[in-house]
Order: sequence, then C-alpha cells, then structure tokens
Amino acid sequence: MDLTDTRNMTMLCDFYELTMGNGYFAAGYKDRICYFDVFFRRCPDGGGFAVAAGLEQVVDYIQNLHFSKEDIDYLRGKKLFSEEFLEYLENFKFTGDIWAVPEGTPVFPKEPILTVRAKAIEAQLIETYVLLALNHQSLIATKANRVVRAAEGRVVLEFGSRRAQGADAAILGARAAYIGGCHGTACTISDEKYGVPAGGTMAHAWVQMFDSEYEAFKTYCELYPTNATLLVDTYNTLKSGVPNAIRAFNEVLRPLGITKCGIRLDSGDMTYLTKKARKMLDDAGWSTCQISASNSLDEHLIQDLLRQGAKIDLFGVGERLITAKSEPVFGGVYKLAAVENEQGEIIPKIKISENVEKITNPHFKKLYRFYGNDTGKAIADYLTVYDETVDDSKDLEIFDPNATWKRKTVYNFTAKELMVPIFQGGKLVYDVPTLEEVRGYCKAQVETLWDEVKRFDNPHDYYVDLSQKLWDMKYGLLKNHQ
Amino acid sequence: MDLTDTRNMTMLCDFYELTMGNGYFAAGYKDRICYFDVFFRRCPDGGGFAVAAGLEQVVDYIQNLHFSKEDIDYLRGKKLFSEEFLEYLENFKFTGDIWAVPEGTPVFPKEPILTVRAKAIEAQLIETYVLLALNHQSLIATKANRVVRAAEGRVVLEFGSRRAQGADAAILGARAAYIGGCHGTACTISDEKYGVPAGGTMAHAWVQMFDSEYEAFKTYCELYPTNATLLVDTYNTLKSGVPNAIRAFNEVLRPLGITKCGIRLDSGDMTYLTKKARKMLDDAGWSTCQISASNSLDEHLIQDLLRQGAKIDLFGVGERLITAKSEPVFGGVYKLAAVENEQGEIIPKIKISENVEKITNPHFKKLYRFYGNDTGKAIADYLTVYDETVDDSKDLEIFDPNATWKRKTVYNFTAKELMVPIFQGGKLVYDVPTLEEVRGYCKAQVETLWDEVKRFDNPHDYYVDLSQKLWDMKYGLLKNHQ
Repeated sequence: MDLTDTRNMTMLCDFYELTMGNGYFAAGYKDRICYFDVFFRRCPDGGGFAVAAGLEQVVDYIQNLHFSKEDIDYLRGKKLFSEEFLEYLENFKFTGDIWAVPEGTPVFPKEPILTVRAKAIEAQLIETYVLLALNHQSLIATKANRVVRAAEGRVVLEFGSRRAQGADAAILGARAAYIGGCHGTACTISDEKYGVPAGGTMAHAWVQMFDSEYEAFKTYCELYPTNATLLVDTYNTLKSGVPNAIRAFNEVLRPLGITKCGIRLDSGDMTYLTKKARKMLDDAGWSTCQISASNSLDEHLIQDLLRQGAKIDLFGVGERLITAKSEPVFGGVYKLAAVENEQGEIIPKIKISENVEKITNPHFKKLYRFYGNDTGKAIADYLTVYDETVDDSKDLEIFDPNATWKRKTVYNFTAKELMVPIFQGGKLVYDVPTLEEVRGYCKAQVETLWDEVKRFDNPHDYYVDLSQKLWDMKYGLLKNHQ
Repeated sequence: MDLTDTRNMTMLCDFYELTMGNGYFAAGYKDRICYFDVFFRRCPDGGGFAVAAGLEQVVDYIQNLHFSKEDIDYLRGKKLFSEEFLEYLENFKFTGDIWAVPEGTPVFPKEPILTVRAKAIEAQLIETYVLLALNHQSLIATKANRVVRAAEGRVVLEFGSRRAQGADAAILGARAAYIGGCHGTACTISDEKYGVPAGGTMAHAWVQMFDSEYEAFKTYCELYPTNATLLVDTYNTLKSGVPNAIRAFNEVLRPLGITKCGIRLDSGDMTYLTKKARKMLDDAGWSTCQISASNSLDEHLIQDLLRQGAKIDLFGVGERLITAKSEPVFGGVYKLAAVENEQGEIIPKIKISENVEKITNPHFKKLYRFYGNDTGKAIADYLTVYDETVDDSKDLEIFDPNATWKRKTVYNFTAKELMVPIFQGGKLVYDVPTLEEVRGYCKAQVETLWDEVKRFDNPHDYYVDLSQKLWDMKYGLLKNHQ
C-alpha cells in the first residue's frame, strides 16, 4: 500500500497566513527569503526531553500543497484578496528549503527541530500545518516513550482510538506511539496504512452475546486457538471470569498442545486481582498464560502497579496515551529567525516579549549534538550561526546562555549535526525512513541520554548552549531594541 | 461546497471488532439483532452537563461504510479470518437503525446519547468510529460552551489549530467549538468545509518582516482598512506597539472616516496591559478600537481577567480549547444493552463490574426530558423501557435510582423524547440540520438549564432517573448475577 497521504491540507491554515500572504504580495515582499524555526519551550509532563515525530506527514503535506479551484473561489468570496494574489495562488507551490531533525530524535527546549528557508508567502502559509503535524505526533511519541520506559520491558499496546481527538489523532497517534516505543495498537487502519502492528481479541459485548461466559470463552478458543486472550471482568473476575477462562483453556487449548494464551482485565483493583488471577492460573498449570491490564493507565500508574507487585505482562494504554491526558499540548512554535536582504545577506530577526521565555534565538542556525567518545552518551546540544563549524578534534568551551559565567570544557567528543536537508528548492531530497527504522532510531538515541535526563520528575537540565558568536549577536539585537 | 466527508473510515476500527465479527459469523450470531447504547459516566471539568456533538460525522461515516478490495486483502494477510467472512465483508453495509440526541443538546451522565439496533457484526464494527466522533466533538463543544459562558457575551474565537491533535482535531474541533457557542475560528478549512466563520489578521512575523513596527502597521491598515487588528506585542506593548498602532490608525483610518479597528495582545500581564492600552486608545480618540487577547486562555483565566477589570472585547482561545486541556478526554462508551432472541423478543443485557460506576443501564430504552410548563426549564431526564410512554398530562413520581427513598413528584410539565431516528433499516431518515441551526439549538437548550446546573464548580446534580419498570428490571438482573 502506498503510505503517502494525498489529502490536500493546503487550506488547513490560519486565516492570517492568507491575509499576510496577500499583504506580502501587495507590499512587494512576496519573494523575500525568510527563515523560520520550529522549536518548543518546555517538555511535556516536566520531562527532560521530547521525541520529535510527524516529519513524514510534513513531507506529504508539502508535496501535496496546492490550491484547488474551489479553494480560490472560496477565498474570492471573502472580498479581502486581490485578483492578482488569487491568480498567484492558482500556481502556488512550495519552492523553498526545509531542514529537520529525523523523526525519533530526542529533542530539547529552545532548539530548532525544523527550519524553513523560503519566500515569505510560502514560509508563512505552511506555519499551521507544519506545527500541527509536529506538535501532535511529538506529543504522543514523547508520552509513549515515558509509558514504555515505565513498563520496564513489558509489552505496551496503544488502545485509545475511541477517545482520540478525531480520526487523525487515532491513526497518526498510533503511529507516533509506535515511534515512541509501543509494540502495537488496536487501531486497524494504522496497521493497514502505516504498518503499526494491530491486534485485538474481544470486548465485553462478546461475552454478553453468549448465553454464558464459559460458552463465550470456549467458542473464542475454538476459533482462535493461537490468539486466545479472554476478557475476564464482565461479571466477576475471580469468581467467574478466571475459572471460566481456565476451563476453556483446559478443554480447548490443552488437547491441542497449545500453551500460549492470555486473560485481560479492564476494571477493578489491578494489583489485587492480577496477583490472585496469577496464582489461580499457575495452580491450574497455566503459568504460560499472560495477563493483560487496561484501565486508564499511564506511566505513573504503571510504575505504581509494578511497585505493588501486580502480575501484569502486557499493558493496554488508552485515553491517557492517545490524548497525552496529563499534558495534552506540545507547544511547538514557528518563529521568524532571519530574512535575506536584496543583496542576499542574511539579516537576523528577534522577537522580544514581556514574557522573557518567549524571546527567540535569532538567525539561520546549525544544531549540533555532542556525544562523548568514551561513553557514547549525549553531552550537550550546541547552536551556532549557519556559517560556523565545530571542530570536534579540539576541546571546546561551552557556557550556559542564561548564566554565562557557568562554563565547561568538552573534550574527546564527536559533534553531529542534527538537522538534515528535507527539501531543497521545493524538491524532496530526503530518503524518508520506514516506520521500523524510525522506531529503532528513537530507541537507540534515547539510550544515548543519561538516566538523569530520563527521570520522569525533576530531570537534569540537558545543555542547549549557544556559540559565542550566536550569543553575541542575540544580545546585541536585544540591546538595540531597548 | 458539498459538506459530506467521503473519506472511508471503515478500517478505523479496533481490531477486536473484526475478530469478534469473524467470531459472530462463525458462531452463527452474525444476524443476531443487538442494541448498543453510547453514554458517558461523568462530565468533563466537574461540570454539570455536556453538549452532544459529532452526529453529522457519524452520519457521513455510516453512509460511506464499506470495505475496499485493499482492505479485504490486508485482512486476508492477517491469516485470522475465514474466506466466507472476507467475502461477506465485500458486500458489507450498515442495514440497522440508529437513534440519537440532536447535536447541540445538553446531555447528562449515564443516559444514552445514541442507540444502535443492528445485526451483531454491523453494530460491533461501528463502535470505535461512532465513539471517536461523538467523544471528540462533545468534548470540544462542552469546553467551548464553558469558555463562552465565562466571557459573558464577549466574542470568543477558536485559535488552536496549530496545537490540535491532528488535522481532524483542528477542522472538526473548530466546528464543535462553534456549536458550543464560539463566534468563529482562525482555521480556514473549517470555514470552507463547514461554514464556521474564519478570520485573522497578522502574526508577529508580519511586524518583523518590515523595517519598523510602524511601517508594518501602516501597510496593514492601508491594505485592510476595514479589518485592521494590529498585533502590538512584538517588541514592547505600551512603549512601542500601542503608540505605533494609534499613529497608524490616525494616519490611515481617520482620513477614511473609519472608526472600527483593533489591537491584539498575545503575551504579558493582560490585566495591566489592557487597562493601560485602553486608556491610551481612549485618550487618542480611539474608544472604538477593540482589544483582543490571546495567550493560553480558558474559562477560569477569562473569569479572572474580567474580575480584575481587564479591558478585553474579544478572546482568542487556543490550545486550552482545541485540546480541552484541563480534561482532554470525553469518556463516552458503547455498551450492549439488549439482544433479540429468535422469536424477536428483546432480552436485556447488563455489564457488571467491580467498579460500581461501570454497571450499565440494560435494555432498549427511551430518553425523556421534562420541561416545567411555567418556567420552560429542564426539570429532569427520565429513562424508560422502550415500550413505556410518559403521560405528561398527569403528575409523575420519580426517584433517585441510587437512593430510591428520595422521591419527588413532577407536575405541570411537558415530556419530550430526546432521541430521534437517524437511520432506519440502513437508510438515513434524519434531516441533518445546518451548523447554524445546531448552534442556535444548543444556545436555546442551554438556556433551559437552571444556573445551578451551569455552575463551573460543584454544580447541582441534574436528575437522570429510571422508570420503576426499568429500575426493577435492572436490579433483577443484578441479583441474578450474584
């Protein structure tokens, strides 16, 4: 199946992108080259890092970018736009450059995760969709990574489609959860379209449909002897569900020599019930039966359950993952960093704000990650002006951009540029990796982070430092605006 | 523009719906008629009611329901399904009945907002998408209604596309927010597709693109003299933004005789800044200039701002509305309520659970709302067995289903059935209202609720009572399962 999403999302833009576009057109700024950065200001859930995701959907979007005749007619009806501008939109396409960190990369606040260099109108128009795609999937991939780490190697499945915020949230949420480390999903279309492994067995309705719970279980085991996970909490988990499951396993699976099977609990006190159920299963000779649990789980509840000794092999995680319930917003922003003047010089731009944390890092930049050669661990990220190059054969002094007296020398390290070219002159130059590759890359990159950065609460602040040249330029601009 | 969404979402199902479907097919249950209810267990944000939304998307979905050849091939590849079942799916369509409360209806926990009567496979397959559509839009409509009520008549615009959880969350979230009472959106495609009025003026990038803030403002006023809302916080709101805006209004708008204009603030202390800005504008003769505020607002922050005397005419509400950040899950569930036996008798079904609040209301039911004839206000909702009829010409004793000694007689009331037929025998029989009609209906219906039910915190528990016949049947089933 072709994985490309060919829906035209061109009109999924904030209306101001069109009024500004028409304005740039009228003011003679339409071909002015601009640089925009996507970055975020803090990690969700107080975490120490986020997982970047959604780039493949940005690629699909950019490739499909165009205004249909209906779109133009709709805009004409607004009586705000010049005919020249509307004509221009008829042949509109993206002709600029995009760099981005690959999907699955651990990323940190205030560093660009995507940079656009394009004509003003083009760069402005794509703002909303680019943010939406990256914000949504980075949110879910980050949350999934927390949940998966809490499960300490146990299987985590994404079960939340019915509580997702719309169809894309379900479909692409399952994709992002898989990038973050989940092992699969209940969402069938995410498997068909994106290759996220989908599975599932029964709902309570299956049990209720039959005259007895036992008959429901027995029928299921007969139909799916190698895939029998029985939902045991429709009536009474310990008095009826588990005994009926054991009876069905004994009568249907045992004669077939099948030992792989499972039960699932979706309500009640999970610690108590799974301990009791585990003992009942073991005593009946079904120590191979896996116990699945699902009921409003998240990373904190999973940690609690495991600490209490709950006997759970597989977690089904629903609404709290698919909506990132504890913090359902990934606050990526899209800010102008520079423009080119008529001579092609790059002029840095800054946005100042009464809220200090809203001040941007100006200029066209490079983003490096430093890895220690002895440990393989990530030491610091380092932002430079586009024309600087880090020589990692030499020691380098870095400093905290908010406390410049805090200095540190890094040595014996490898500097890797994190952003790679995605589009050049409107042409896709990036070999989009498979979903499995992205998931594997994420896992490997998260392993380069120190445990202190991976703590769920009060993690160590990973360094995102500016080069001296970039820092001088930024604070020069700030001074000029005083 | 045709508003129907013709994307085929058939495969947006939980995988277990397919394993169960294949199971019903094999077990001879595929044509067994089932009744499923959609209901929710508690209102988001501790509110007293929710606003039902998403039905139009359910209608689109049901009408497009079919498996493509690719879908069947994908399922065959899973090696779980019989060829007979796959053949059956080739001609699959929905042939059942659906009843639902109209979009915009205030609804309460534990009452059905949609009921399906269909063959087992059909009823089971639609579970995920029906829930997803209703859960998402009911969540956002409910949140929007809270935000709009907090604004006490001021304009509220939905600004959150970039932080939405995927494209549908942006597009349909704007639709749901409009149903809940928002006055418009920034999301262009929601206007084009659904008629949610879209608008917008400028981002910080517009201001930064010009050599000076004043030039940016002046150019904008010249281009859009009747739609000039200037963003004043790019550099310094009171020292530069507001004075430059006043200068642009004076130099461009005043000579044209235009008095309608606006400024927007997106950062800083909104109370302080809007009071100061209001005075500066008034002193300069621009008392007609409206002040817009946007910066992570929700119903509580809006109430606070107004209590502090902030001078705001229009609220742009972003991430906290489009994700319903304070509680981003609407917990609608889809539960079997009854099946028909071979004689066509309706056999009620109940789901029991260790969590008492997860016990369902069994049987095929009717949902009435009682309105006081003297006040026009909603007094109580009342669930009956399908074959009961409420005679509102007589007094009626109702009782709390959880405390049956709490009894109350209602009199001088009109009983209205809340659920209306949507599909009959697979055919759409519902005249889908326009979005404006839905929004107007929502406003009128919310006005039938007492203020005590509309409180944001600790609202009065609205009565959702069961008829004596329904109560007796439910507790009879519970006893039988002990």
